[in-house]
Amino acid sequence: MSKPCIVFQSDFGLSTGLPASMTAVAVKVDPELRLYDLCHEVREYDIKAGGSILANTFPYWPDGTVFVSVIDPGVGTSRKSCVAKMDNGSYIVTPDNGTLSELIDRVVEVREIDETVNRLPGSDNHHTFHGRDVYGYTAARLASGQITYEQVGPAYDVASLIVFPKPEAYLKDGVCYGEVVGAHDHFGNVSISIPNEMIWSIGIHAGDQCRVTITKDGKILYSNQMMFHHSFGWVDPGEPILNECSNDFVELSLNKASFIEKELPELLSAYDLSSYKVKVEKA
Amino acid sequence: MSKPCIVFQSDFGLSTGLPASMTAVAVKVDPELRLYDLCHEVREYDIKAGGSILANTFPYWPDGTVFVSVIDPGVGTSRKSCVAKMDNGSYIVTPDNGTLSELIDRVVEVREIDETVNRLPGSDNHHTFHGRDVYGYTAARLASGQITYEQVGPAYDVASLIVFPKPEAYLKDGVCYGEVVGAHDHFGNVSISIPNEMIWSIGIHAGDQCRVTITKDGKILYSNQMMFHHSFGWVDPGEPILNECSNDFVELSLNKASFIEKELPELLSAYDLSSYKVKVEKA
Amino acid sequence: MSKPCIVFQSDFGLSTGLPASMTAVAVKVDPELRLYDLCHEVREYDIKAGGSILANTFPYWPDGTVFVSVIDPGVGTSRKSCVAKMDNGSYIVTPDNGTLSELIDRVVEVREIDETVNRLPGSDNHHTFHGRDVYGYTAARLASGQITYEQVGPAYDVASLIVFPKPEAYLKDGVCYGEVVGAHDHFGNVSISIPNEMIWSIGIHAGDQCRVTITKDGKILYSNQMMFHHSFGWVDPGEPILNECSNDFVELSLNKASFIEKELPELLSAYDLSSYKVKVEKA
Repeated sequence: MSKPCIVFQSDFGLSTGLPASMTAVAVKVDPELRLYDLCHEVREYDIKAGGSILANTFPYWPDGTVFVSVIDPGVGTSRKSCVAKMDNGSYIVTPDNGTLSELIDRVVEVREIDETVNRLPGSDNHHTFHGRDVYGYTAARLASGQITYEQVGPAYDVASLIVFPKPEAYLKDGVCYGEVVGAHDHFGNVSISIPNEMIWSIGIHAGDQCRVTITKDGKILYSNQMMFHHSFGWVDPGEPILNECSNDFVELSLNKASFIEKELPELLSAYDLSSYKVKVEKA
Repeated sequence: MSKPCIVFQSDFGLSTGLPASMTAVAVKVDPELRLYDLCHEVREYDIKAGGSILANTFPYWPDGTVFVSVIDPGVGTSRKSCVAKMDNGSYIVTPDNGTLSELIDRVVEVREIDETVNRLPGSDNHHTFHGRDVYGYTAARLASGQITYEQVGPAYDVASLIVFPKPEAYLKDGVCYGEVVGAHDHFGNVSISIPNEMIWSIGIHAGDQCRVTITKDGKILYSNQMMFHHSFGWVDPGEPILNECSNDFVELSLNKASFIEKELPELLSAYDLSSYKVKVEKA
Repeated sequence: MSKPCIVFQSDFGLSTGLPASMTAVAVKVDPELRLYDLCHEVREYDIKAGGSILANTFPYWPDGTVFVSVIDPGVGTSRKSCVAKMDNGSYIVTPDNGTLSELIDRVVEVREIDETVNRLPGSDNHHTFHGRDVYGYTAARLASGQITYEQVGPAYDVASLIVFPKPEAYLKDGVCYGEVVGAHDHFGNVSISIPNEMIWSIGIHAGDQCRVTITKDGKILYSNQMMFHHSFGWVDPGEPILNECSNDFVELSLNKASFIEKELPELLSAYDLSSYKVKVEKA
């Protein structure tokens, strides 16, 4: 049986050598490991964004994969470093800082990394790069079979893991209410906490018109009528559309253009996206 | 004999988890496959740019490689998904939307992907991510030998593949005429449809002076005398040069600076580069 | 024994197909090689920045690794192409242009690449892409065992390698003096030539206050009192801190924000960082 692969993500950025430093340590531990990158351009310090990317892609990797996720603004301070064991035999090596929120229901056990034994030899004086010295090193030794899961360190209560509040999404009087959960600089789409199914349940189906309203602190920032459909390509370029995203939640887009850039650029610099409330109703 | 490798490209961007989702699906199909990335920062929706990158790098990969290229603004609409078989035994898995234009002479057969059998199990409700659910999955099963090329789906007429008009490049009265085919934000160079050989044919050789003129709708946007040489390093920093690019066509550059940023920034937001005409003559 | 891995870095950028072209050539030489990327978003033409990333990550890769580093503004001109043999059996394939400065003490032998034999067949007319046609090709053949180190080309004097002056760092009257050696657009930190140990030696330890002053041409650009600590997370978000970086030198940061963007944006466009002098003293 082949060894599990390791999948790395971080907010280290691709203009630095930091992601490759984690790779290097893993290669040195065991050159036969298969190493993949998830995303290293997670917005700096944005633990929620990193957690979402991890949760959205987690189901597509093989059971038994070892993930390393390092969005770690608290590095070198008192936050715990942990390895979570998941219900499919995969592991997630990460600071215990909320990264696991969206996958919390799949965590079956968690252990705190004992840095007295699970730390790159010679790295004791380094306090800012646990991704390399602790997480990458521990993940590689775990994937390689050089340590067992029990040797990671002492187990602690899964219920004590830091978890962000679940984004709200509810139906009231035939209207869907939710909040912004993702603001993507790349295509400029807005991810919303409302499941595709909730939209269908109020009688809005592919090709129907709906009205989407975004508010913050009770003030309307955006309100428009648009088509709801399977994908963004069903409207003319530049037109808005509410589409069924492939993570089973709805997404607000322009066809071939950036919704965020055109309509709501402040989303890109906002860290508390949950204060942006979304309402979807029949038009 | 080892299995063919898979090479992925897309306009998904590296700040998302989307490229890695394609990787994940392939790893799950067959963990022994060797997976490489071509480019995931192709300009959003820019099918021509993606096609150029693919065509420029295609000859350097081993025969028999399986490519996945997903610049797919029409995802979820009626455009075909296909697998082209190339004259060297390689395959290209892509939407049939013009991506294959520059490689069309090397396509020997094309099949439409039959999504009733070649689709990630459980993904039927997902309409926006064929890169993951259809292309990555099909490419991995093809590379792994789990399906034959015939099992991809029904063959159709290669002559019916969507192909962009060939960029014009011609000689008239000892002057070279062509058009802009690439505008690169990274080094800021302008790729031109004129082959190195055509420049040589009018008696301009490495070290000679030439005049380069760019027009749009008959209006001159740029005209300057400069050196023609093997590479951009032959002029002083900041100076313009027409150089022989390593894809056998000429390129307009500044040494150690961005031509586009300094002289013609509008190129970066233009999708129809072919309307920018280029003239090169002896100076 | 498994073959050595190859690690690629360049300033080619990830929005181009250039890094992948180097990968392609290596895969074609030997599909069994394990290929990794160090960083392809090194600032364009910034040989020093590339050399720093290489030097900072070099110790973490296995002994015997073959590195390819191509920040090569002089491509196609007269600069030498070389392969340096390092004291741990690793090799670095690179233009001889200063890239090896920070690792010069570990170079045990250097050979100039003989391009009459070590060049991708058919690439003689290409003058702008030695990363693909010469460096990637030679590295792959060396790693694969198809050529010996001696077959790279003739040895030359290590002492003649181009080396940048060592960044200054010294103690005087209980004050540490150094210069800026890195300005990072990603987290916005400033790397400084002063070793952690030199700071400790003047009695400043984790949790102590210090004063950091940056000057250029004798003019004060920044001066502030701040905490010195193991990592940036010990001050409130937005506050400055001098922290012990994991490369054993100090770094100037804001917690969860960009020092450079807020205080000294000119650093991002400066190529001669050594003209920015740094003073650290007890507060």
